[in-house]
Order: sequence, then structure tokens, then C-alpha cells
Amino acid sequence: MLPFEKNSRIVFCGDSVTDVNRDYKAVPAGWGSFGDGYVNLVHALLTAVYPDRELMIMNEGVSGDDIKLMAARWDRDVLDMKPDYVSVMIGINDVWRHFDGPFRQADLVSLDEFEQTYEDLMGRTEPRVKGLIVMSPFMMEPNRDDPMRAMVDRYAEVARKVADRHGATYVDVQAAMDHFLEKQSSYILSMDRCHPGIEGHMLVARTWLQAVGFDWERTTFDDEK
Amino acid sequence: MLPFEKNSRIVFCGDSVTDVNRDYKAVPAGWGSFGDGYVNLVHALLTAVYPDRELMIMNEGVSGDDIKLMAARWDRDVLDMKPDYVSVMIGINDVWRHFDGPFRQADLVSLDEFEQTYEDLMGRTEPRVKGLIVMSPFMMEPNRDDPMRAMVDRYAEVARKVADRHGATYVDVQAAMDHFLEKQSSYILSMDRCHPGIEGHMLVARTWLQAVGFDWERTTFDDEK
Amino acid sequence: MLPFEKNSRIVFCGDSVTDVNRDYKAVPAGWGSFGDGYVNLVHALLTAVYPDRELMIMNEGVSGDDIKLMAARWDRDVLDMKPDYVSVMIGINDVWRHFDGPFRQADLVSLDEFEQTYEDLMGRTEPRVKGLIVMSPFMMEPNRDDPMRAMVDRYAEVARKVADRHGATYVDVQAAMDHFLEKQSSYILSMDRCHPGIEGHMLVARTWLQAVGFDWERTTFDDEK
Amino acid sequence: MLPFEKNSRIVFCGDSVTDVNRDYKAVPAGWGSFGDGYVNLVHALLTAVYPDRELMIMNEGVSGDDIKLMAARWDRDVLDMKPDYVSVMIGINDVWRHFDGPFRQADLVSLDEFEQTYEDLMGRTEPRVKGLIVMSPFMMEPNRDDPMRAMVDRYAEVARKVADRHGATYVDVQAAMDHFLEKQSSYILSMDRCHPGIEGHMLVARTWLQAVGFDWERTTFDDEK
Amino acid sequence: MLPFEKNSRIVFCGDSVTDVNRDYKAVPAGWGSFGDGYVNLVHALLTAVYPDRELMIMNEGVSGDDIKLMAARWDRDVLDMKPDYVSVMIGINDVWRHFDGPFRQADLVSLDEFEQTYEDLMGRTEPRVKGLIVMSPFMMEPNRDDPMRAMVDRYAEVARKVADRHGATYVDVQAAMDHFLEKQSSYILSMDRCHPGIEGHMLVARTWLQAVGFDWERTTFDDEK
Amino acid sequence: MLPFEKNSRIVFCGDSVTDVNRDYKAVPAGWGSFGDGYVNLVHALLTAVYPDRELMIMNEGVSGDDIKLMAARWDRDVLDMKPDYVSVMIGINDVWRHFDGPFRQADLVSLDEFEQTYEDLMGRTEPRVKGLIVMSPFMMEPNRDDPMRAMVDRYAEVARKVADRHGATYVDVQAAMDHFLEKQSSYILSMDRCHPGIEGHMLVARTWLQAVGFDWERTTFDDEK
Amino acid sequence: MLPFEKNSRIVFCGDSVTDVNRDYKAVPAGWGSFGDGYVNLVHALLTAVYPDRELMIMNEGVSGDDIKLMAARWDRDVLDMKPDYVSVMIGINDVWRHFDGPFRQADLVSLDEFEQTYEDLMGRTEPRVKGLIVMSPFMMEPNRDDPMRAMVDRYAEVARKVADRHGATYVDVQAAMDHFLEKQSSYILSMDRCHPGIEGHMLVARTWLQAVGFDWERTTFDDEK
Amino acid sequence: MLPFEKNSRIVFCGDSVTDVNRDYKAVPAGWGSFGDGYVNLVHALLTAVYPDRELMIMNEGVSGDDIKLMAARWDRDVLDMKPDYVSVMIGINDVWRHFDGPFRQADLVSLDEFEQTYEDLMGRTEPRVKGLIVMSPFMMEPNRDDPMRAMVDRYAEVARKVADRHGATYVDVQAAMDHFLEKQSSYILSMDRCHPGIEGHMLVARTWLQAVGFDWERTTFDDEK
Repeated sequence: MLPFEKNSRIVFCGDSVTDVNRDYKAVPAGWGSFGDGYVNLVHALLTAVYPDRELMIMNEGVSGDDIKLMAARWDRDVLDMKPDYVSVMIGINDVWRHFDGPFRQADLVSLDEFEQTYEDLMGRTEPRVKGLIVMSPFMMEPNRDDPMRAMVDRYAEVARKVADRHGATYVDVQAAMDHFLEKQSSYILSMDRCHPGIEGHMLVARTWLQAVGFDWERTTFDDEK
Repeated sequence: MLPFEKNSRIVFCGDSVTDVNRDYKAVPAGWGSFGDGYVNLVHALLTAVYPDRELMIMNEGVSGDDIKLMAARWDRDVLDMKPDYVSVMIGINDVWRHFDGPFRQADLVSLDEFEQTYEDLMGRTEPRVKGLIVMSPFMMEPNRDDPMRAMVDRYAEVARKVADRHGATYVDVQAAMDHFLEKQSSYILSMDRCHPGIEGHMLVARTWLQAVGFDWERTTFDDEK
Repeated sequence: MLPFEKNSRIVFCGDSVTDVNRDYKAVPAGWGSFGDGYVNLVHALLTAVYPDRELMIMNEGVSGDDIKLMAARWDRDVLDMKPDYVSVMIGINDVWRHFDGPFRQADLVSLDEFEQTYEDLMGRTEPRVKGLIVMSPFMMEPNRDDPMRAMVDRYAEVARKVADRHGATYVDVQAAMDHFLEKQSSYILSMDRCHPGIEGHMLVARTWLQAVGFDWERTTFDDEK
Repeated sequence: MLPFEKNSRIVFCGDSVTDVNRDYKAVPAGWGSFGDGYVNLVHALLTAVYPDRELMIMNEGVSGDDIKLMAARWDRDVLDMKPDYVSVMIGINDVWRHFDGPFRQADLVSLDEFEQTYEDLMGRTEPRVKGLIVMSPFMMEPNRDDPMRAMVDRYAEVARKVADRHGATYVDVQAAMDHFLEKQSSYILSMDRCHPGIEGHMLVARTWLQAVGFDWERTTFDDEK
Repeated sequence: MLPFEKNSRIVFCGDSVTDVNRDYKAVPAGWGSFGDGYVNLVHALLTAVYPDRELMIMNEGVSGDDIKLMAARWDRDVLDMKPDYVSVMIGINDVWRHFDGPFRQADLVSLDEFEQTYEDLMGRTEPRVKGLIVMSPFMMEPNRDDPMRAMVDRYAEVARKVADRHGATYVDVQAAMDHFLEKQSSYILSMDRCHPGIEGHMLVARTWLQAVGFDWERTTFDDEK
Repeated sequence: MLPFEKNSRIVFCGDSVTDVNRDYKAVPAGWGSFGDGYVNLVHALLTAVYPDRELMIMNEGVSGDDIKLMAARWDRDVLDMKPDYVSVMIGINDVWRHFDGPFRQADLVSLDEFEQTYEDLMGRTEPRVKGLIVMSPFMMEPNRDDPMRAMVDRYAEVARKVADRHGATYVDVQAAMDHFLEKQSSYILSMDRCHPGIEGHMLVARTWLQAVGFDWERTTFDDEK
Repeated sequence: MLPFEKNSRIVFCGDSVTDVNRDYKAVPAGWGSFGDGYVNLVHALLTAVYPDRELMIMNEGVSGDDIKLMAARWDRDVLDMKPDYVSVMIGINDVWRHFDGPFRQADLVSLDEFEQTYEDLMGRTEPRVKGLIVMSPFMMEPNRDDPMRAMVDRYAEVARKVADRHGATYVDVQAAMDHFLEKQSSYILSMDRCHPGIEGHMLVARTWLQAVGFDWERTTFDDEK
Repeated sequence: MLPFEKNSRIVFCGDSVTDVNRDYKAVPAGWGSFGDGYVNLVHALLTAVYPDRELMIMNEGVSGDDIKLMAARWDRDVLDMKPDYVSVMIGINDVWRHFDGPFRQADLVSLDEFEQTYEDLMGRTEPRVKGLIVMSPFMMEPNRDDPMRAMVDRYAEVARKVADRHGATYVDVQAAMDHFLEKQSSYILSMDRCHPGIEGHMLVARTWLQAVGFDWERTTFDDEK
């Protein structure tokens, strides 16, 4: 059963997979604020099926963010929005820079720093919200021996551990992608194996919603809170 | 259970509610061909959840169409695409022109002409496809006594009768909208009560998918056809 | 008889129905300053028929304003312009946010706050001008039982009461719209029932001009002041 | 009393003063078809005050036309629209080319050719419509000795004679402009003394409406035809 | 004989007739700095015929300026450029606002204020430069009884008097225009009788150059300074 | 004395030095038809100084033309315009392609073919016009030993011979450029030594006008034809 | 030693890897005709190092082409250009459509059809040119077991066999990419593993040039042909 | 042998020949940071052939710079980037302004000031880097007696002397250009003889790479540092 009370505020934070061209000047939860990715789809599904809950969805993803960049803006972009629930997906850029960054000597985030920073963010946030949702970073590459996929798996494992320590709902997006890739090539979901198209974002949205207890078949408002 | 066999071709035909800025020059089922409305969402959900089926979704909606304009292009836009399944939603413009057209003396479609044309289209199409889906035209106005809403209901009733005569699956979008409007104003779904935003399109997509037996919770490919 | 003396300054204040794409950088009463709505039409009719009066029309409408937002800029935008006459139309956004705002938790203006703020503005302005004109907020919806229309009527009633207390000319735009809607659908005037097209703006302009004593048939300058 | 029966079709033909940026691809009497000049204002006033008449206004002005160019497209643009009433304003370009055209050796229309062509057009049109309206060409220049103004007067005189011969309503726009110019400079109405701004167009619209019996004060539908 | 010594700096100051779309961000005397009017033509003719003089032409015209606006920026825009020669043309806006400004209650410059301000500017500038050139404001209207033309003549007379008092070269542009208008209509030179086209600007440029002793037939560099 | 009779038609034909962004869709001798080069300046000077002559200037230059491309369009673009006078400047592209074309194997025009084609064009045109003007092709390079400059000189010599055989006025633009380049670098006139800026075009215009007897000092219309 | 004789014409044909935004309207071998990929780099290197050869490089790549689409335009785009040498790179789209095309039921090219078509094209071309160059299709994916990479290898093997049968120079681009990928991730070269960036195109260009005997250290023209 | 150690940072500084439309807002060594000139080509060649070195290339060219302007930003743009190697090409604007600047009285840099400033920059930089590369300014004009070319040669000679004094590698780009110009016209390389096209930039890149020991034929990573 969907846990979000009427008028709950849900903040989604993350990188470009969360952002997806959202309008930074939009009114929170207003026109253009949702972007074109999974946050928009989650918003549309929650509104369509649970109009009585009047859930306020806020997209605070910023393209290019790794966990350090996200941590630097956490207070202003997440806590100051007074969320009831916070959903986070981070880590793909922490990994990616090891593979596309050597020629520009990008500042890399080690697995340890990733875990410490994630731990700190969740630790500070847990006492101030009703619920946390942690989503795995993911790569749309089925070969687990691919060097970047293997590293993504290690960072995702950290996300899972942090989630466990703070009683967060863990959304294993990578598992959903792997299931899909049993049947189709990564090019159906993404050109670069990191940024999904609409089909991939729908898969992310469904995975998130299934994890939080969304009822697709809901036809009455009897469960209203 | 979703009835569409692997590699089925499904054509969606209709007016601006189906079209929604699709790129008329796009390759069928290629980038940009789906528009930004319920067809795009249906495509994304079918692809995400049933990747093994490889369903080809073709959007043949044209903004501004009433049933006469749609009938004039039916052979080329629908039958020539060799569809296995055809989904139709038409009628809002047939009604709307009675209300916004008097000063330009729009060419109006009577209820009889609407029924005859619809009957003819379905009659010619039924023997050539595996399945028909007929969607009700709808207005996001809860007051059934509103003159335009009342007329939409009469045209929707015709659609239902035609659907019954040809063994089509009938998708009652108006009922889904009415359920929503018990809780929220029409402005949440639409500015003009006829063209939905993303939330309204998601409601259309869900209603369509529920009518054809889509399984949101599907997690294996064991039901593959 | 038109009461405005030669060289009178008339400020129109309000929301998007007053603003209508005016150029905020335009010289007051210069090219582009009038917008594309009723203020522009009032200006054109006064200039065409009363060129000898040389009336200075200033549009100070701002899209999106409710009465609280308008009050915050009243001194700078209205009083500092040293008007001889002030015309106000406000309230539709105070109502509308109750219907389109729940998912973004918009800050709502109660009927009491609306009345207090309106009262305060008129009280401060009355002693500084030669005349006040108060226009009713309005909705192009003929069904008085429609929840939003019913609420608009309550806010309009407040406007009328405030007008009466300060000797303002009251312009009942809603009545003019209701008269029109006896014969035609709201779609002739507006897509969203709140923002008029050119025909609706002409109706607003005529209603305003009739209320202040504009003489359409005037053919001499003998009544010059 | 306004003579136009319910559902009358009224075609306005002429040059750039009639055209004013109308969208040539617009549906007749649809969005964008009216342009930004007096035709738009006449349409808006007739719609606002006589919504019960459902008058269809068609703008067939073409920028740059002199009477020869207009005559060449008369059948297609005017008669084929099956008008009940036709309103014409032509002649300013026939005159203007004598003054701005010598260096490009523009093809000039003599007063005789102007009269013959006008006579022919009205003669062919009179038997096919319920009413004709002929508007004077005009120049926003108060000095009747100005060479171009003097020539405009001669062409306007021809228009009046042709109107008389065919029982047309004659609209003396020049007289209305002259009245205005007693009080204000031509720069209030126009930069080039030929193309009016919104104030000048409003003056043209009012003059036209007064000539055909428009009732600005109309408040009931009792005079319905 | 052309009086400008090698490497002289000549600043042109004035209103839109001087400015003509010059690029305010251009390097002085660099690409785009000259605008599209008479200053550009003067520059091109001086460069083509007197390349040995290497004259630096600076356009400091600003559209919309009357003499008060120009005076407010005189030190920064003219004197700080360290000119050897200064050419001024101002006054048309001082007059025009009396005719196009009443509805916006433009701030008018009286003939006295015009003379005082002009006198002050020339008085401060004369001791700091080698030469002053004063150009008459002008209107491309041949009728000297036209109210605006008559007023322009009064302001031009002031310019001449000021020029005489400070030993400035006076360039009678109005006389050159009047000569032209004996043969052709004002529409050949200008749509609004104030802003010239390329032909009118060439006439201004020729008049200026004739006044300062430019030799069109010059074919040697023997007169080099 | 300027030989062109009142209402003469003068066609300028050539390549990009003549064309200079003219609007190919413009009415002949109308707005935008003159381009931004010497033809525009010649037009402006003739209009400014000889308004009584009402000379019609037609720019028929086409960027990229060599003599073969120009010959192919000569009948339509030049003779069909019924010119009284024809002015030609051609040849720079015939030369340039030898220097910038080897890698794309441009189709080269030999000196012989250049002479034959030029001879043929002038031979066919001479009997149909009142006068011919032949302008030298030119390069803004002072070093006569530069390989391209040397070749330009040979093609210019052909132009002079053809001019002599047909009694054409020969305009030696190269000589004017060489005189200028004694004092300044080619960069003052042109970035690529072939396409002039405004200063270079003014030099071309002056050279042309001096060759045909233009009187810069003309102040009366007593010499009218 | 570079085999291309002076003035040789070399046509490059292929898909988007060859095309890379070339201007289809450009003159062959003229500005913009080379695109932004390896053809442009090959052209620049050949021009810089062998200016005496005057080699004409023609890019005839078309984005989206598989071998069937390319074959359909071969005569017009390749043979009609009268090339001395022809270079081909094709096949990536033939493979890719198996992986990104199932939902739109793309028309697939089997390995047999690929070989037959390639064989036919080379067979028809070999007798008409001095030399053929065949480039391997390639994928910037180091894992040879990746399903798409494995299929690319099979198509590349066909290209090699066809090259051998027709005495063509074979350019093994895949080998060069594999060497690079020993040291860096594919993201350095490409986002989608199929379309290279500038670094990847440089690698293609170098590989091509090494295969044909380009001498990077060449410093004299003594080897001129 | 290429001297740059793994992870070396190489800064290129200079004027528009170095800059070439680089994106000033780009991340150093990131997308768009390289511009479209020789720096981009050097980067691409080093990356393609020496991927194991992971060299970070930074373009710090600024269009329009002469040596004084470059010196003013040297600390921030060059030294603060902590380069291991610095490459400089400057001087063409110091010379050019003598030829295109007289009419705008450009601030000229004398040969002495050029030498002093260059000396100072290299003196301050030498102790802070592992290597300096000095590139000659150059003009694509083969005639050494051309006044501007002659002056360029004198400034280049200064660059060489400064290079010698600081143990810098000197890259004689002018010599490479002169070799090319033995065979082709300057128009193959440049329209204005100062800004190269892609062919000219490739020549610059090759000359630079040959000077520093780049091995075009390198096929193993055995020389890794």
C-alpha cells in the first residue's frame, strides 16, 4: 500500500538521469519542473492513480553531479524543501569519470569517499523525514565483466549498504535493467548505456513505484489517508 | 493476459489527443514518431514490461481530425500499414465544432453521420485485423448537464455501440476521467477540458492498458508467445 | 458623459487579463506598453473618439498576480505613477489556485484576506485620486453551480462591496459574460474559461467604457473640457 | 439597425490597410485569419455585441494591391467565398505609386482606369450579394493641397460615385480622419500617413460600423433575426 | 580644401539620424561602429578620396535623443573622445515630441531651453577643438506651413544662430532637402519624413562634405598635410 | 555632363562585387534590390543629385559568376530588362579559380575564351542600347608581379580591348585601387583582396561616376533633359 | 609511396561515419563538402603534405545507409563522379539494425546479402578505377564476445574477403581501435561505440593514410608524379 | 621521441590562430575546449597515437590578442593552469595593426616592446615548466618583399632569438608555409593570408608535432613512460 500521506512532499535528488532537462526556473512542482525522465513519469502515475493524495513531487537532479557535487548542495536543494520523503540516485558519474576523464584529469571519487559521503548525507537526513528511498546507480550493459559495469556494481553495493543502515527502501534499478537486457540490446534503452530514453525511464519509474507499494489496479479512493 | 503476439503491429488512429506533436516525417515506430501523449506512454510501458514481444506501435493521429477527415485517410494511414491491431479514438472534434465553430460556419458532423462513418470504418477493418480497440471520446468536465459534455456522451455511446457490433474492446476513457474528477478540478488535467497534459495522458494510457490485459507486475518472460 | 478631464492619467492594474503580453520595458503609454487585451482596446477607443482629451493610459497588469502579489507592488506601480483615475480587476488567481494548485501546494488567499487586502488598497488610494473603477473578476462558465464559478462569484461580491464603500464605479464584467453565454459557448470567448481572446477582451472594454460614460456616437468636440 | 441576417458571410477586400499581417494559410474566419487591423476590430465588436447573429467575417485584403491587382483575384478571393455582403477599400496604392514609384517605373493606374475597373467589379458583384459597402481610400494628411492628398481625394470621389451607382453603403473614412486631425497630428495615427496604428484602425472600424447601423448600446437579443 | 589634418579625430553626435543601427559595443572607428547612415558614407568617402589623411571618424549618435538627453552624455561621449573636430545634428526629437507625444505626456523641450542647452554645449566645446560643424535639423516635408515643419524651421534657426556665435561651419541640410523636394515626393527619401533612407543619407553626406571643402575630383596626394 | 536621359534604365551586371547580398526576390529597382555595394552607392548618388532624371538602376550581379556563367543568363537578366545603358564588371572569378580551384578541379576559363565570350556579349548588346560601360576587373594587391595580380591585369587588358571595339566607356577601377594602395595597405579595403568593404565600394562608385560625367557639385536642375 | 597521381579524384562512400554533417548542397570538394570526420582530416593531411598532387577528395557518405541503401545510389554518387580511386566503409548499420531495430521491424540485411551486394559493387567498380580501398566496419567495443561486436567482426571479415577478390587495399580500422582500447575506455572515442569523436576520426584517418603509403615526414616535392 | 611524460599538462597560448572558436565556458580539456584549429588537431593526434600518455591539452588562445594583451592575462591563463609544457604563438596582430589600424589609431607594439615583453614572459615561465615551445608568427604570403610579410619576418626573428635564450623548442611555421606556397596560392590556405583553414591548421599541427618528436608510425606502447 502506498505509504505517502495526503499532501506529502517527495524530493528526488540525483544527477542527469534524474534531471533530464528540467527547467531550473520553474516553480517547484509547477509546469516544466519535472523534467522529461522518470520523475515526470512517477509524478504522472501518482497523480493519475492517487489524485486524492495531492502529492507534491520535486525534482532536484542536476546534470553532471557526482556525490561530492550533490553533497555540496544538499542542504539548500533537499533539506530546505522540507521534504517528507527523499529519493536519491547517485554514483554513475563517480564511476564514469574514471573512464572518460583521464585526458582532462578529472577529480575522481574513490569508493571509500563515496561511501563516507553517502553515509553522511543519509545520516543527516534520516531524522528529518518520514522515509528514505535509495536507488541503485546502474549501467545498461549486460556484461558484468565490463570494467565500468563492474565498478558500477561496486558503487551500487555501497548504496545498498547505506540504505540498509538507515532503514531506507532500496530500489534495485540495475536488476530491472539486467532483466530487460536478457531479451534486448542496450541500444533499445540508451545510446551511451548511461542515459535512458523514454522506455528506460519508464522501467526506472515502474521499479521505483513497485518498491514503494504503488497499486496500478487501484480503482477506488477507499484507502484514502 | 496481454493478447498481442510477438512482432504484432498496432496502429493508433485519431485526432490531436492521439497525435500530440508527433513528427510526421519520422520512420514508423522510430525516433519522434510516437508524439508526446498516451501513445508514447503505451509504447514505453509495453516496451519496458514486454521487451520480448517486440511490439511495433504506430501513431497515426492527426490534429484537427473529425471522423470524416479521418475516414478520408483511413486506407492509406491505417490499412496500408498492415496492422494486426487497430485502436481508434475519435469524436471530440465532431462535437466541439458545434460549440466553437458557429462564427466560421464549420462543417458539422451529425450523430447519424458519425455512426454511419464509424460503422463503415470498423466494418471494413474488422476482417483484416486480429483485434479492434475502440476508445471513447471524452471531455474533462464533470457536469453531465453541460451542453458539450452531454453531446460528447451521446457520441461516446455511438462509439460503444459500434464497438459492440464488431467485437472490439471498448475503452471507457470518460469513466476514468469522471472518477478522477470526483477528487480534483479539470484544471489538473487540462486547460481547455479537451487536451490532456501528461497526467491526463497517463490516465488514458493506463485505462487502455488495463482494457487489453497489460500486467504491470509481470516479472518473468515465461508467458512469452 | 465621459468624466476624464484633458490630460488625465488612468492606471489599469490587475493580473494576466490586464497584462496580456505588454512590454515591461516600454515607456509608459508608449509603443508596446498597452498589451494586447482590453486596456489596448480601451486606449484605442478613447484616442479615436476623444483625441482632444489626450488621455494617458498606463497598463500595470502583471501576469500571475493574486491580490497579495499585487498589493506588494501597489505603491510603486500605481501610486507612484500619479494617476488621476485607477481601474482594478483582481481575484481570478486568488480563486484559481484553489483548483489548479493543490499538487504544488500553492499559497492560497482566503475570502477574508481578499477582502481585507482589497479594502486596504482602496482605502489608501481613494484620497489620492479623482476616481476609482473596480472591475469584477469573472469566469467564462455559465453554470453558476460549477465549484470554481461559485467561488468566483463570492470573490466578485467582495469586490462589489469594497467598491461601494469607496464610491468606486463598479464594472460587472461577469454579467456581460453571462449575457453572451446565453447565446454561445465559452469556447467562443476563451479556451480555458479565464483568459479571453480578442472577442472577450472587446466585451470587457465595452463594459468598462459603458460604465464610465463613453459616447460611441460622439461626433463633435463641443463637450471638450 | 444592423442589417446582417444570422449566419451572413461578409467579405472584406482591399490592400495592406485591410490585410495587416493576416495569416494567408488560416481557415476562413478561423484563428489568425482576421489580421491585426480594422477587420479584426469589426469582427470582435460584432461578435461581442451580436453573438446571436453568428456573422462570418472573411478578410481578403492583400498587401500591395492596387485596383488592377485586386481585380485579377476578385473571382477567386471574393465571389467564390459566396458572400452575402462585400466591403471594399482600395485606391491608396493606385495613388501612392505616382509618388514613390518613379525610380522603379511602377505601372501606374490612371483615374479613368480606376473608375472603369471599380465599376466593372461592383457591376459584376451587385447582383450576387445582399449588400455592398464601399470605403473611401484615405490619407492621414490634413493639408488638402498636399499633392498626394489631393490625388487621394480624386480617387475617393470616384469610389463614392461607383458606390452611388450600385446602391452601396459608402463609408467616408477620410472624413473621420480629417475630424481627428483637427485635434492631433498625423503621427498619432500613423508613421507614414497611409498605414494606421491600432488607434487609426479603431477609427476605421467605428466609421464602418456606424455606417452599417451597429448599435453599441445593444443589451438584449430581442432584435434577433 | 579639406581642413582636417592627418590623423584628425572627428566625432559626430546626434540622434537616430546619426546613429542608424551602429553597434554600441564596436571599437571606436572599427567594424560596425559607423552605423548605416550619413556618418558611414562620410567615412567611406573621406577614406576613399583622402586615404593619406587617416581620419578617425567616431559616431556618437543615440536614437531617441533630444538635446537634453544628448547634453547629459556630452562629456563622456564627445569630449572624452578627445576630438579635433565635432559635428552635431540635433533637434528633430525636440520638435517631434510636441506632435507624437501628447498621449504619453512626453517631457517637452521649449525653444528657449533648446537654445540655452545648445549654447552651453558649444560654449564648452569650442575652446577644446579645432573646429565645430553644426548641422540643421530637418524634415522631409516641402510645405513650410505644415505645423511640424514650421516648428522645425524655428529650431533650425536657433542652430544657425548658435553656430554663428561659435564660428562653427553651418550645414543647411534642410535647404538640400527642399531642393530635392522640388522634383520628387518625400516618399522617395523617407517613409515618415524624419528618418532618411540611403538616398536621403547620401544627400546629407554630400551636403556635409561640400560644406567642409571636400574635393570629389581629387586625384593626387600633393595637397597632403 | 551626365548622359543618361530622364527615365533611362541602367542595368549593372557582374559577379559578387556587383551583387553584394542583393535580394533576388526584390522588385527591380525596389527595396533591397540594390545590394550593399557600389551599385547601391551609385543609385543613391544619382538619386540624390539628379532626382529629376528618375533613373532606374537594376542590379543583376550574381555571386560566383565567371564570364561563362554570366553569359548563360545574359539574355534573361540583361536584355530582357530592356536597358538603355548596360554596365559590366566581370573577370575576377575567371582568374581566381586558377588559384583557389585546383583541388576541386574547377572549370577554368582561358584568356581566349574570356575574350571571345566578352566580345560576343558586347556585340549582341551594342546595337540594342544607347550606351555600354565596361569596368575593369581588379585585385586589391599592389604588387604587379604577384601571379594572380599579373593574370588579373591580362584579363583587364582584354576588357579594355573589347570596350574599345564597341565604343564603350571604360572604367579603370584597377587604376583607382592602385592609387589608393600607394598610401594604405590592402587590408583597409578588403580582407581577401577581391571583395571590397564599404570604403572600397565607394572608390568603385566614384570611379564609375567620374567616368560617365557625374557632377558632384550640381546644384540646379537647369541641365534637365 | 603515395600512389595517387596528380589531379586524381578520390571518392569516399559510406554511412554516417563517413558523412559527419557534410553539406549536401556543397560544390564537390568545395567549402563544407568534406564533413567533420575522417574524410576532412584525410583531405587536410593530403593537401598539407602533398599540395603538388592537387588531389580532389569527394565525400559521398550518407547517414543511415546500410549496404542496400548505398548500392541503390552507387551509380549516381560514385561512378558518375568519374573517380580514379574509390574508398568504401560500410556495414555498421547492417549490423546495428539487428540490435536497435526490432521494435520498428527494420528491414535487415543478412550476411549473405551483405556479401553479394558488396561483391557486386566492387565487381562493377574495379574495371573503372585505378584503385579500390575497402575499410572495415568497426565497433569501439573491446569485448569480442559482445553480441554486436561479434556480428561486426563477421561483416568485417566479408569486407576483407571482397577486398581480396578485387585487389583492393584493405584498411583494418577495427584493429586500430582494438589497439587503442587496450589503453583507454571506449568513452574516450565515442559515446555510443559506433560514431567516433575527433580523436576516433583521427585514428581512422591515420589508419587509412598508413595503408595507402602516406609519408608524414615528406619535406620535398622530388617524388612528384 | 615524444618528450611528454604521462599526465603532462600542455598549455597553448596565443591569438585567434590558436583560439579558433573555442568555448570559453568549457571545462579545461573538455568538450568544446579545443577550438577548431591546430590545437584541436594536435590534441586529436596525440590522443590517437599516444593514448597511454593521457596528455591534458589546454587551449588558452584569445582572438585579437597582441603580445601586450596576452601578457596581461598570462599569470591567470597560463601559469595558474600549472602546466608542464607551454607552447606560444604570438605576433601577427602586433604586425597587422600597423596595416589595418591607421584609421582607428590602433595602439601599436614596436619591435622593441615586442622583444622585451616576450623576453619577460619566457623568463618568468622557464623556471616553472619542463619545456617551452615557441612558434613563429607567420603570414601566408610568399612575397618576402611585401611590406607586411617583411615585418612579420622581423617579429618572427625576435621570437626565434627569445626561444634560443630560454632553451625553447622553436617551431618555424613560416618555413612550412613557404614550402607549401611554392606549389599553391595562398588562397588554398587562407582568404586573408593570416587565418588558416583546416588545411593550413593541419600544416601548423604537423610542423609542431615534428618539432617535438611525434612518431606518426608508432604502433606499440613499449616506449611508455
